[in-house]
Amino acid sequence: MKTAYIISTGTELLLGTTIDTNSVFLSQQLGGMGFRVVGKSIVGDNKQQMNRAFELALQCADVVVATGGLGPTFDDLTKTVACELLGCEMVLNEEETTRLKEFFLRRQRDMPEINLKQAMFPTEAVIVKNVRGTAPGMYLKKEGKLLILLPGPPSEMKPMFKDEIIPLLSADFVKDLTKIVSSTIKVLGPGESKVEEMLGDLMEDMGGCSMALLAVDGEIHIKITAEGNEPEKSEKILKRECSRISERLGKYVYGFDEETLPSIVGQLLLKEGSTLALAESCTGGLISKMITDLPGSSQYYWGGANTYSNQSKMIFLGVDESTISTYGAVSPETAEQMARGILRAAGVQYGLAITGIAGPGGGTTDKPVGLVYIALATKDNCQTKELKFVGSRDAVRNLSAKSALDFLRRYLQGK
Amino acid sequence: MKTAYIISTGTELLLGTTIDTNSVFLSQQLGGMGFRVVGKSIVGDNKQQMNRAFELALQCADVVVATGGLGPTFDDLTKTVACELLGCEMVLNEEETTRLKEFFLRRQRDMPEINLKQAMFPTEAVIVKNVRGTAPGMYLKKEGKLLILLPGPPSEMKPMFKDEIIPLLSADFVKDLTKIVSSTIKVLGPGESKVEEMLGDLMEDMGGCSMALLAVDGEIHIKITAEGNEPEKSEKILKRECSRISERLGKYVYGFDEETLPSIVGQLLLKEGSTLALAESCTGGLISKMITDLPGSSQYYWGGANTYSNQSKMIFLGVDESTISTYGAVSPETAEQMARGILRAAGVQYGLAITGIAGPGGGTTDKPVGLVYIALATKDNCQTKELKFVGSRDAVRNLSAKSALDFLRRYLQGK
Repeated sequence: MKTAYIISTGTELLLGTTIDTNSVFLSQQLGGMGFRVVGKSIVGDNKQQMNRAFELALQCADVVVATGGLGPTFDDLTKTVACELLGCEMVLNEEETTRLKEFFLRRQRDMPEINLKQAMFPTEAVIVKNVRGTAPGMYLKKEGKLLILLPGPPSEMKPMFKDEIIPLLSADFVKDLTKIVSSTIKVLGPGESKVEEMLGDLMEDMGGCSMALLAVDGEIHIKITAEGNEPEKSEKILKRECSRISERLGKYVYGFDEETLPSIVGQLLLKEGSTLALAESCTGGLISKMITDLPGSSQYYWGGANTYSNQSKMIFLGVDESTISTYGAVSPETAEQMARGILRAAGVQYGLAITGIAGPGGGTTDKPVGLVYIALATKDNCQTKELKFVGSRDAVRNLSAKSALDFLRRYLQGK
Repeated sequence: MKTAYIISTGTELLLGTTIDTNSVFLSQQLGGMGFRVVGKSIVGDNKQQMNRAFELALQCADVVVATGGLGPTFDDLTKTVACELLGCEMVLNEEETTRLKEFFLRRQRDMPEINLKQAMFPTEAVIVKNVRGTAPGMYLKKEGKLLILLPGPPSEMKPMFKDEIIPLLSADFVKDLTKIVSSTIKVLGPGESKVEEMLGDLMEDMGGCSMALLAVDGEIHIKITAEGNEPEKSEKILKRECSRISERLGKYVYGFDEETLPSIVGQLLLKEGSTLALAESCTGGLISKMITDLPGSSQYYWGGANTYSNQSKMIFLGVDESTISTYGAVSPETAEQMARGILRAAGVQYGLAITGIAGPGGGTTDKPVGLVYIALATKDNCQTKELKFVGSRDAVRNLSAKSALDFLRRYLQGK
């Protein structure tokens, strides 16, 4: 099995203020391709330490992937150190120089002279384009080792790895990699141990697959993996195990693999040709943000109101002052009026509303922090649901938003 | 300055399924005590790889702290590897044997023979009690190096570090530990290299401080650190350097340390006793989400409208159909009507609006992806601003939201 080693560079990663998420992503990707990750190292912007880390990495593994330190400033050392160690000479790359100049031109800014450092590469290197930033990556084979350097910002590194590096790696290692296929079943509602309990006997015989349960942002993800030298056979086993598990979990399964709650809800609305409007109190725009994170959401999302005050509930949604004074802003009655109000104002097929106490303050014995009401209005009907969450403000808001989307998802699926 | 190196062991940390939070905690603790963490390494339960990691660590640093791999099973190798490397012989420790037996007795379980491995220690080691689990830690000084081994579960490791290791370290390094103070200056607008250029000569003489520039989610953070044996003197130097730098960067500096754009805007509104309402198109609720992430935001945030369709702009904000058809939904004219509309509907002091093309689709030659208009309406006035961003949908939305908040911040500060 081919081995890989990951190096993350950046002094901030050693201070305990920034968490190194890049190496987690790279572990998953490399592991998924069939490499064994044998080690990771995190090193500051210090030449000697960086040298030692690369030395060790090149000693340990066939493939070394490093992120960070490709910027233009004095403390960006990765490329210099790694290439020196492999005995490569750096020269100014014409094409990258032009690209850099254009990058600054498009932003109507002058390019500082130091940025030219980013266009210096060993002649042996394949330059990996960075369409989201100024620092290109590189892919260099030398002396039986493969060195991959990528920029530090995850928003640049991740697409570069997926779009550019995976095809290069696949071509170079096509014979060596064991085919691993995997699928993820995504669940909202039950916790990790509840899911484990529900699966029970299914976990005992997985027909050669392996299973891992992961708690991710209030959801449970069940990752099923099959490996072997006959990809078609593995795919078949994987498919069978996935259906057995998702059948058992029933309505709690909202999607698979790359699907998210907003993407599933979007698909279902598109399929119906229906449009949604939102009325958010405690989530204050979070659900709307999640929906509009997706390009094309304007096809099924009309818009909504973030009614963070009683007055905005009355003005935008026509909630009665007496409803709020009698039952409170956090009540099924107010939730229902919010949902009916946004449905009426927008003239859409679905009006989804949420009101609750996100905390940490604002709770009472009757209405504690974490109490949330969801309401879904259609032309003929309005359903409300009470939920109780425990956790930080962020956790309560996140779970509230997802539960509201899931309430709509189940309604649209008739579950 | 004394240096430290952190090793986290455990194959699960290399699979990308478990995030190594131990080393983040240890970085913070060691950094806070005055050690400079020079590197981290993550290694699986493999003897050769572990050996290489410990060798490198002992080469790099005065203090090596490793977590994990102290359990009883065959793949718990940390103690064996590290002690062999330091030339220490392991013997069965009587006291620990008794404690282990009692641990199992209390749980009414038989102690498996292999657990005795956990009571094997070099004679030179100080044994660090583990009251929450079976694996004790150790603290070993040899040949000018200090080796600290702790169990992997964070619930055991963290209290052991705080209660047992910190006092030992403080006593051993009392003379060597320098007090570190630091501060972060937060900037929105100019990029990393532009900031470096603006600081120019200031960076040459920092009066003994060190500086690091970090690009964080579209912002630039400038971390200034001062160290020395006289904390008061360091604080004074730090303060002086921070003012020199923030004076130079002027209006671009929005805050310091833990402050964020939403928290600064919130403080400024509270101070004035003013209230804000939002009208968001391309950010679709993101700004509202950012504001309401903060508890207490209902004191200055009225609410807002996520007007993701032309119709919602007309219904909630009273934008004229003719304005949209003549100038387009993404235009200074529409932005202005949105801001004036939300101000009127809400009856607040500030109406902030944003409209733009977040991409990846929807751009034209005249109005490319990344074109954004912000408008800020007050009773007497309305200002608009055109911005152009390049990048992914997420990047454009994030920068748009922050720029809108910063537009308001500068207005409130008269900058």
